[in-house]
Amino acid sequence: MNLVRELEQTTIAGIGEDLYSFAASLFPICRSITGDGIRQTLAMIRDRIPLEIREVPSGTSVFDWTIPKEWNIRDAYIKAPDGRRIVDFQRSNLHVVNYSTPIHATLPLEELKTHLFTIPEHPEWIPYRTSYYKEDWGFCLSHNKMLELQEGEYEVCIDSTLADGHLSYGEYYLPGRSSDEVLISCHACHPSLANDNLSGITVATALAQHLSGRSLRYSYRFLFIPGTIGAITWLAQNRPLAQRIRHGLVLTCLGDAGGFHYKKSRRGTADIDRTVACILRDSGEPFEILNFSPYGYDERQYCSPGFNLPVGCLMRSVWGSFPEYHSSADDLTFIRPDSLAKSLRVSVAVIDALEQNRRYISQNPFCEPQLGRRNLYRSTGGESIGTEINARLWVLNLSDGENSLLDIAERSALPFSVIAEAADLMCQHGLLQPVEDLKDGPVVRC
Amino acid sequence: MNLVRELEQTTIAGIGEDLYSFAASLFPICRSITGDGIRQTLAMIRDRIPLEIREVPSGTSVFDWTIPKEWNIRDAYIKAPDGRRIVDFQRSNLHVVNYSTPIHATLPLEELKTHLFTIPEHPEWIPYRTSYYKEDWGFCLSHNKMLELQEGEYEVCIDSTLADGHLSYGEYYLPGRSSDEVLISCHACHPSLANDNLSGITVATALAQHLSGRSLRYSYRFLFIPGTIGAITWLAQNRPLAQRIRHGLVLTCLGDAGGFHYKKSRRGTADIDRTVACILRDSGEPFEILNFSPYGYDERQYCSPGFNLPVGCLMRSVWGSFPEYHSSADDLTFIRPDSLAKSLRVSVAVIDALEQNRRYISQNPFCEPQLGRRNLYRSTGGESIGTEINARLWVLNLSDGENSLLDIAERSALPFSVIAEAADLMCQHGLLQPVEDLKDGPVVRC
Amino acid sequence: MNLVRELEQTTIAGIGEDLYSFAASLFPICRSITGDGIRQTLAMIRDRIPLEIREVPSGTSVFDWTIPKEWNIRDAYIKAPDGRRIVDFQRSNLHVVNYSTPIHATLPLEELKTHLFTIPEHPEWIPYRTSYYKEDWGFCLSHNKMLELQEGEYEVCIDSTLADGHLSYGEYYLPGRSSDEVLISCHACHPSLANDNLSGITVATALAQHLSGRSLRYSYRFLFIPGTIGAITWLAQNRPLAQRIRHGLVLTCLGDAGGFHYKKSRRGTADIDRTVACILRDSGEPFEILNFSPYGYDERQYCSPGFNLPVGCLMRSVWGSFPEYHSSADDLTFIRPDSLAKSLRVSVAVIDALEQNRRYISQNPFCEPQLGRRNLYRSTGGESIGTEINARLWVLNLSDGENSLLDIAERSALPFSVIAEAADLMCQHGLLQPVEDLKDGPVVRC
Repeated sequence: MNLVRELEQTTIAGIGEDLYSFAASLFPICRSITGDGIRQTLAMIRDRIPLEIREVPSGTSVFDWTIPKEWNIRDAYIKAPDGRRIVDFQRSNLHVVNYSTPIHATLPLEELKTHLFTIPEHPEWIPYRTSYYKEDWGFCLSHNKMLELQEGEYEVCIDSTLADGHLSYGEYYLPGRSSDEVLISCHACHPSLANDNLSGITVATALAQHLSGRSLRYSYRFLFIPGTIGAITWLAQNRPLAQRIRHGLVLTCLGDAGGFHYKKSRRGTADIDRTVACILRDSGEPFEILNFSPYGYDERQYCSPGFNLPVGCLMRSVWGSFPEYHSSADDLTFIRPDSLAKSLRVSVAVIDALEQNRRYISQNPFCEPQLGRRNLYRSTGGESIGTEINARLWVLNLSDGENSLLDIAERSALPFSVIAEAADLMCQHGLLQPVEDLKDGPVVRC
Repeated sequence: MNLVRELEQTTIAGIGEDLYSFAASLFPICRSITGDGIRQTLAMIRDRIPLEIREVPSGTSVFDWTIPKEWNIRDAYIKAPDGRRIVDFQRSNLHVVNYSTPIHATLPLEELKTHLFTIPEHPEWIPYRTSYYKEDWGFCLSHNKMLELQEGEYEVCIDSTLADGHLSYGEYYLPGRSSDEVLISCHACHPSLANDNLSGITVATALAQHLSGRSLRYSYRFLFIPGTIGAITWLAQNRPLAQRIRHGLVLTCLGDAGGFHYKKSRRGTADIDRTVACILRDSGEPFEILNFSPYGYDERQYCSPGFNLPVGCLMRSVWGSFPEYHSSADDLTFIRPDSLAKSLRVSVAVIDALEQNRRYISQNPFCEPQLGRRNLYRSTGGESIGTEINARLWVLNLSDGENSLLDIAERSALPFSVIAEAADLMCQHGLLQPVEDLKDGPVVRC
Repeated sequence: MNLVRELEQTTIAGIGEDLYSFAASLFPICRSITGDGIRQTLAMIRDRIPLEIREVPSGTSVFDWTIPKEWNIRDAYIKAPDGRRIVDFQRSNLHVVNYSTPIHATLPLEELKTHLFTIPEHPEWIPYRTSYYKEDWGFCLSHNKMLELQEGEYEVCIDSTLADGHLSYGEYYLPGRSSDEVLISCHACHPSLANDNLSGITVATALAQHLSGRSLRYSYRFLFIPGTIGAITWLAQNRPLAQRIRHGLVLTCLGDAGGFHYKKSRRGTADIDRTVACILRDSGEPFEILNFSPYGYDERQYCSPGFNLPVGCLMRSVWGSFPEYHSSADDLTFIRPDSLAKSLRVSVAVIDALEQNRRYISQNPFCEPQLGRRNLYRSTGGESIGTEINARLWVLNLSDGENSLLDIAERSALPFSVIAEAADLMCQHGLLQPVEDLKDGPVVRC
């Protein structure tokens, strides 16, 4: 199996367009951590993969937290003293502070201003703000628009409901030969914001589609969840399952033009950390590896000390570090088909490496086996050898049962895929024997 | 307790002036490794802290060494052939080689010269030389003065005594809740030399004053001792006590204008090594961390292989590396009140960190606790967080019982004091529980 | 014993000339992995050291390999259509692909060309090519000469034999006090090529001569073997002996003008790896330390996973990386007497360090011993100390039974030889006691 090669048999350009158009169709929906927006989003993902949609009632205790009331919104606006709708939810769902309580009132400008949010440094952009756990209301608007506001009485209306209901999330479990799992998690709670995180949703969906129907070594679990509370909910209700997670990735901000960033798990030297670093090294794309920190996306929860799961976060530009972050500038012009496609490609290559990575034991550990008589070496002596033969020597030399293919790829500085192909070839010639250490995973025969 | 903050409530300028004037009052005394000079010095320290003064008889065996005879001196001079006192102990006690045997004789210039020491590279300065363990006599003078000497007969007189007596040192033990100790050691045997080591004596004395009367976690032992032989004597006579030393600092050369230097203990990764490095990192002052080497001050003895104590050496300019070292140029113009005050501040901050450093265990290890409902988080979602909240996330995430606050400060790159304050706050809210691992030290409650 | 000092008592210039003239006398021989060329070479080495020459029959199984038939050659040529000998084995034995099967035929140019090898980038040089394990024939010639060839019928003649016989190699075992061994291995199968590897042969021979007749701590085994198959043969027939190898070096490419390169063993932190790095650091010569890789010379076999012996490879320019490699340009003008002599000097210094390296235990571990009363310290206090005294402090401080002299030389950044001399002096004064951990090696008394 070579997942990357199969991915490339379809046109990368076509994949990028598909990812982008899926993001575009999701863009207008007013998502939040609960409510019909995320439900509609999950339904659209289910059109592509057999997602199970879970509903957890408001008030449910999840560790230190409680599932909040469900929030839904139909309309919202601010009318100027002259009656014009100067801020209109119908034009951008970012205009309303997410989770705003309902209100219909008339206020003087001064009082109204205590409920307004702007970004003075980017006076044309509307910020994205939330108030999930403190009941309040507010509007977000461009700084320039706020500066134009004249003294007078303003009519504000937020036609929302905040009432007992459910938290919704989507889960797709793809069983493999082992019950050991790879977790792919992305948040699906942001309204009209493209990079954060329609990019993550679309790449995760396409990754699930690509893996679907294959014979896999690991089992895979895809979570499409509201940020923070969704991860906490899943972990609280699935503590035994969480122990099966051998590797995990949070996918976010994968559509912009920036280079790749991978934030390591709390462990720092987990296989997922080393695998992503190795695949990014091999990719030829610009990238940077970041140390773990406890602020971020749902790796915060997966890497809390009681779980300490080997889950890192794959991004292009880092959330919070690009100016468009959490503003109306993170729109469909900020993400690009080819960025999405390359992000998918890297994700697939990481999965491919996890699937192929194992330890082998040389069947001829004393001196080199004679590759020449097996036609696995160059025929004329005295000349130099190429990368393929070099990779064979590396896997034969280091396959003492201690070193994994990842260890060998790191130490040899050869691409993981070349090392894996060499191991496969040596295995076919009976020179290596694989070691299987996954739970319930039968030893793979060459 | 925040020792640094309390220190700063008094004026730093005032502290610097006090340290400097104490150094100035100690400067004229002709100290040596034994005798009335060091006794007088210890008495003046005892005016500030309740020092116990120990007297160990000459001839006492201390490991491979023997306490030497006691040396005292009243006067010394060289008279030129014309009868003028051209070298006069009354003008500078550096003029006599420390521990010189008594002599009163008349010598031709050529023979006299075999007993003279100068510094040709700094022809105006008088060197500081000693001959503790080889009975001999000599004079130190400026190179220029030596060049002026004319042929003729010279009268030399050293009115000293070298006879059975005692080695004197001062010890101040400040009991804390635990019998585990922090050692502060400085040599007090140099005559009129300011940076080496009146700076160490004054900073150590002020540190003892600052800690005195407080409720402390560790016990503290301050040693004011003659270099080498004093440390050997204390260790030989206190082997069981030495095993209580959990952290230690030798203080020397802390008054000049140079940046800080910290020489690590032989262990290299002891808590004291990491704590000083962290505090210097946080201080904003220029600094450098030096590896251990077996040449230096009394860390040589504390770090001998049989003891291998976690004792490092805090300095500004490194002894032996600045030209004024061991010469008359290391006088009261070479040290500065603000340098002494900042050295005290760093020392206090190190002690503060040792006192506060411990491991905690999160009481909500599964996922993050909900800081928002405790008013410990920003209220509006979507914006970035500040250093204080970030520090809270770090201590909660890493407090698994393995990581100390020092580990967390290092890994987060946040100041130790910010991490310690966050831990304290989290503790007050019941989110963390401290672990105490000091001997006899009761578990601290938040 | 100081092997380096004794080496320098003879003139280095003289040693270089001797090494070079030995290389020059070996140069014309047409060596291969079997046959009379290597036999003649071994006989010439035996004129200098008491080499035992082993003969292993063709067809013998050695791990995954089989000893090939023995190859010998008397003459070979290509005659142009006009009857001129345009390629002539008598002028350069590189002209024949090593191990070519016999042939005498007339061929058109086009067919001939499929048996010709050239180096287009260096059109004047003749390449060195082999075909040991695939029966074939061929000629090597300069690219320019090949371009001159006109259409027509060419007479080719290779007067060789490939028949059952023996593989020959030389072994010299020099017993020391311990049965633990140091292995020195070099390949002796290349025809008229100087740097690769007459340089290795001559340096290894001179090293054996230099060690011969001395009282040695380790036993030494010198192997002069055909590359790859020779090392495999020795390892296959001496598996128990191989377990005695505590340190080893493959010597190759030691005569050119380039800086030193040391390729570490597969273990990467073996004593031999650290020793060579330390000696090269001390040498003042330019050098580079390379990580292990499984392609190279016979370290490939010694470092195969079933053996994983601590054997590295000492070189000047790295095989394969200089243009003259495996071509007629690697001739006697490419190697230099002084390069050979300095390579020998480094090799001797490495052996010297292995012989002297051990752990010591301080007999005065509590505080420093008083060096002054033993006249091992400077007499006047206050001045700085020199390297010799510093080295004494280092060995006393770190000799806790854990640190070897190599550890101390690395940590102190002082030359190994200075550390070893200090340890010897401290030992003579009863301040250190050596620890012996070699098999059968009696504890050395100072």
